[in-house]
Amino acid sequence: MTDLIRSWVETANDPQSPFPLNNLPFGVFSTGDAPRCAVAIGESVLDLAALQSAGSLPDHGFDEPALNTFMGKGKQAWEDVRRTLTELLREGNETDAVRAALHDMSGVTMHLPFTVAEYTDFYAGRQHAFNVGSLFRDPENALPPNWLHIPIGYNGRASTVVVSGTDFHRPMGQMKGPQDEMPSFGPCKRLDIELEMGAVVGMPSEMGERISVDEADDMIFGYVLLNDWSARDIQAWEYQPLGPFQAKAFATTISPWVVTKAALAPFRCATPPREKELLPHIRDTGPMLYDIALSVTMAAKGGAPTEICRTNYNTLYYSAAQQLAHHASSGCAMRTGDLLGSGTISGPEKGMFGSLLEMTWGGKDPLTLEGGQSRTFIEDGDTLALHGHAQGDGYRIGFGPCVGTVLPARSGEAGRS
Amino acid sequence: MTDLIRSWVETANDPQSPFPLNNLPFGVFSTGDAPRCAVAIGESVLDLAALQSAGSLPDHGFDEPALNTFMGKGKQAWEDVRRTLTELLREGNETDAVRAALHDMSGVTMHLPFTVAEYTDFYAGRQHAFNVGSLFRDPENALPPNWLHIPIGYNGRASTVVVSGTDFHRPMGQMKGPQDEMPSFGPCKRLDIELEMGAVVGMPSEMGERISVDEADDMIFGYVLLNDWSARDIQAWEYQPLGPFQAKAFATTISPWVVTKAALAPFRCATPPREKELLPHIRDTGPMLYDIALSVTMAAKGGAPTEICRTNYNTLYYSAAQQLAHHASSGCAMRTGDLLGSGTISGPEKGMFGSLLEMTWGGKDPLTLEGGQSRTFIEDGDTLALHGHAQGDGYRIGFGPCVGTVLPARSGEAGRS
Repeated sequence: MTDLIRSWVETANDPQSPFPLNNLPFGVFSTGDAPRCAVAIGESVLDLAALQSAGSLPDHGFDEPALNTFMGKGKQAWEDVRRTLTELLREGNETDAVRAALHDMSGVTMHLPFTVAEYTDFYAGRQHAFNVGSLFRDPENALPPNWLHIPIGYNGRASTVVVSGTDFHRPMGQMKGPQDEMPSFGPCKRLDIELEMGAVVGMPSEMGERISVDEADDMIFGYVLLNDWSARDIQAWEYQPLGPFQAKAFATTISPWVVTKAALAPFRCATPPREKELLPHIRDTGPMLYDIALSVTMAAKGGAPTEICRTNYNTLYYSAAQQLAHHASSGCAMRTGDLLGSGTISGPEKGMFGSLLEMTWGGKDPLTLEGGQSRTFIEDGDTLALHGHAQGDGYRIGFGPCVGTVLPARSGEAGRS
Repeated sequence: MTDLIRSWVETANDPQSPFPLNNLPFGVFSTGDAPRCAVAIGESVLDLAALQSAGSLPDHGFDEPALNTFMGKGKQAWEDVRRTLTELLREGNETDAVRAALHDMSGVTMHLPFTVAEYTDFYAGRQHAFNVGSLFRDPENALPPNWLHIPIGYNGRASTVVVSGTDFHRPMGQMKGPQDEMPSFGPCKRLDIELEMGAVVGMPSEMGERISVDEADDMIFGYVLLNDWSARDIQAWEYQPLGPFQAKAFATTISPWVVTKAALAPFRCATPPREKELLPHIRDTGPMLYDIALSVTMAAKGGAPTEICRTNYNTLYYSAAQQLAHHASSGCAMRTGDLLGSGTISGPEKGMFGSLLEMTWGGKDPLTLEGGQSRTFIEDGDTLALHGHAQGDGYRIGFGPCVGTVLPARSGEAGRS
């Protein structure tokens, strides 16, 4: 475990800061002008477009409103930029030019950090798969037969991936309860979250190319927190036989900062023991997961947040590198900006479950929020937030917020007029 | 039914030409230089970048290597350009400037006509859903309970949508037969086609916006032929519970010309009678399908093509406008360049089935090709082609070829080195 790297940006040396010099996560910000790339440092954001324009950084498209150009440059460029920024911000190295490129984090607007090429959502949490299999299908055969052999995933919708703080309307959809004679169309009644991490693909692969697990790991630029909002009633009616569609298409929230693989390197850890030996193309080649403490808070409108879940990324069965190797295994071309959701991260016990579906066991066992309100699923005005950090010795690697508030459904007739 | 509009490009007046002046489909071509936009006319392509640069057309990005800018301009721009081109090419209106912008179709390279934003594949063929349900699941309950109420669809992979003529390698994948104790990884053994049409979204919708079926229809720019290549053995093992993933991710072929809704307007026809009344948000508002004759040919390496299927787009249960309205119904933002696969188009009888899975009834009933070779699924070197046209009075609206040849799998160890 490495120690804190001290910075002349004093707020970065606070042991509780999510953004010490060891972190240097990448994002896109604006201050009333054009969005451009930045790193977070303590309570500031450092404008990389300004550094690029001053010649302190090479031209990696830091003046663009997305990290894609930089992410597509690959591992060596990522390492070089990290080394340069670490030196520029290291205690004792303060310069006026770099200080002038700092902005107070509280005064800037954060944007989606990269253009999402395609979004894929996996299902790599063993406890989650077991819980959902028990609730939706058969508790005796909760885990699908393929689950221990391949990282199950499906293609999600990229057009509605939004940055933390983007509120959205409760989805409408078609649903049919087991007692209903006919389906109906209306606002979702069982709106849920899914606590996930997102892996962000930096380097692409070609159509038809076959990549190893280690090559897949090298392609990953970094990680974000990810909330895969889910409409359980729409999902239950639509998902057979071709999988979730509109139940997951209305919003997916990610944290504004992409935490790099380099920052997370000290927190690498092994996947759990294999119940069935994996085939060679997706077999672990070393510690592939990360020890990242995760939690979820829920607040009713105007109320205080209540922590409703506490778990860890290290409980997943498959790593992002294994998921990516599987994703490309058929010959599927992977692209800069592809976002891979880990799957819901549910620890082995109640209190560690990453969705309300599981926490309330299908709505049968309500939660009580601070102030006394009870919840099974999300109500209008509720705010849900994911939190995550890796704990080092005297510092932490944080992700920043992953928050969204649910607005009332746009019901009434469809149509723009 | 309208008559042939005669053109001074003589080859466009041949009643067998797929590209009379009534058609004017849009594509992207090159002649050893930068790809740019064009329309097809008879045996020629007309360079729209040249016309734009000469001021004969407004600046709609026709000099770009994709139709997206033009498609995003909307219905009025589409109509205006069509009217202008019709006049420029009408019999009697020949000019040197326009003649100079014509290129022999046989000498140009066709490219993917638009940047595919996201690719969604539907499942709107009743006979296909029944056949597949019978083969994969239970013949007594072949049609899923939701099928008559919503256009079932799933998100596909956009990064491997390729233009006709792009050959690709047989996919690798994990599979497990019912008799196998453990899964294995290797080349797909049950490689298949799916005969589909693709609807191309021109105008976008906003996240959270609700659109009517008529508004959805207005957003569609045009249609292509689409072959959703499918690895049936990979699919059978992976698709539960979250749907097809790597089985469909390795290649999807589309025809090079996007045939506009205006060209197809005379061939509009009604969807089949509804077995269950549809809910209002996806209910037909008029004739929403098209009478388009479709066929598939298959040829072994060096052999002559054999017609193995003949069917019609008008057999589908849901139109593209209904699928698009459903797609946006949750609040899902739709984008310029979204591609919606219709689902496999299987007519009601053998000989009209749009996949080898159905034609050979799961591989039990082989086909015989010209020259005597027999086939259950696709072998290396086989060439599959989709064909389609709407038949007018003395003219036809064609789509051009939708062809691909399957190369041997890249087996051996994964990895780039």
